[in-house]
Amino acid sequence: MDIHPRRYLNQLEAIHLDQELFNECHFGVEQLMELAGYSCACAINDAYPESKTVLVVVGPGNNGGDGLVCARHLKLFGYTPEILYPISPPKSNHGKLIKQCEMFDIPFLKTNPTLEDINSKYTLVVDALFGFSFKPPVRKEFHEILKTMVVMKVPCCSIDIPSGWNVEDGPIAVNSLKPEMLISLTAPKLCAKLFNGQFHYLGGRFVPPKLLQKYKLDAPDFLSSNSFVRLK
Amino acid sequence: MDIHPRRYLNQLEAIHLDQELFNECHFGVEQLMELAGYSCACAINDAYPESKTVLVVVGPGNNGGDGLVCARHLKLFGYTPEILYPISPPKSNHGKLIKQCEMFDIPFLKTNPTLEDINSKYTLVVDALFGFSFKPPVRKEFHEILKTMVVMKVPCCSIDIPSGWNVEDGPIAVNSLKPEMLISLTAPKLCAKLFNGQFHYLGGRFVPPKLLQKYKLDAPDFLSSNSFVRLK
Repeated sequence: MDIHPRRYLNQLEAIHLDQELFNECHFGVEQLMELAGYSCACAINDAYPESKTVLVVVGPGNNGGDGLVCARHLKLFGYTPEILYPISPPKSNHGKLIKQCEMFDIPFLKTNPTLEDINSKYTLVVDALFGFSFKPPVRKEFHEILKTMVVMKVPCCSIDIPSGWNVEDGPIAVNSLKPEMLISLTAPKLCAKLFNGQFHYLGGRFVPPKLLQKYKLDAPDFLSSNSFVRLK
Repeated sequence: MDIHPRRYLNQLEAIHLDQELFNECHFGVEQLMELAGYSCACAINDAYPESKTVLVVVGPGNNGGDGLVCARHLKLFGYTPEILYPISPPKSNHGKLIKQCEMFDIPFLKTNPTLEDINSKYTLVVDALFGFSFKPPVRKEFHEILKTMVVMKVPCCSIDIPSGWNVEDGPIAVNSLKPEMLISLTAPKLCAKLFNGQFHYLGGRFVPPKLLQKYKLDAPDFLSSNSFVRLK
């Protein structure tokens, strides 16, 4: 299995494609976040069917929203997710997604877990901190958890972009995150060329063919009604 | 395969459960419609993997919204859906869902198709006219297409409720719709006891366990990350 994706989006293309999904296709952010987060949970279930205790680390933007949706679906699939929100949740943004997770009795950690906590308690960490609109430097509030995630022994699954990576050039520092799994959403971004973990998936099956064509993206080989496909 | 669902919701319970999903769980209507419609498309793909030319008949309420979402996902799965909207689409309600379908080049029929049209052109008709809040009588605008659907030779798949049926008591007239497939959403409604078609599926995998308990619903046997399960 080594179907290398043939085209990667640069940061500006990723931002434009996202805008077209909202403005031209008239999708709502809740809709696409639901499909994206669901496809992430499905891909994780495919790659780690036995890895049941999952810490989902959630950032303040749409990548974090995908993580919250992913956590909820993982719970429905029989996983035991917990959520870390390194900064106080912005009320305007993820309020409803957080309440949905609370209705599913998914615990929110009150403080950053220590390295020992993570290594002993979880079998997978989902990195939903920063997405395709990230520009360095990493904000101070996220330094501690990112440092821990870089050295932890637990495998890491990054949603769309390994957090802290430059969206186009990849790892910024020697001690950058090295996820074992990457789930690219709608299309891989340039930094995915430098991903050398075990599992590369594509999720986010909602782009109309005419938009794929416009961005010269090959139609992804999703199988049957699956919301994800393994690329590597 | 004959796992009979153990509990059926009456109309008032279905309405209350729906309200709790919005008010207590803080779900958005776009979110749940997306998940419901997606699960319908997945179930149809499971039951009719070869039935590619599908007419989706869409009503003005949330059942119709599920149908529009279902059509869009069917198109992504490689089907050739077309949509019939027997009354002019209400601008406030399904506007965005309609535009999304248009972006996927799904044709909207301009007039009711004749019986011959349906029998010759389509291999499946999806009935997304009325859902669990339906109360008879059927409005005049829908008489013609419903009459055609009752006598057509093409198999019919009803979303949640066979349209024109009483939500609790089932078929109202001798010449009621007899769908070959029924996709109950979240939980079967009472009328599903009288469904004797070949395929009964459950979709809409998003109800938190505490709401299932409150409504004395058994946890459905969804497999792995599937959004649907076949009940019969």
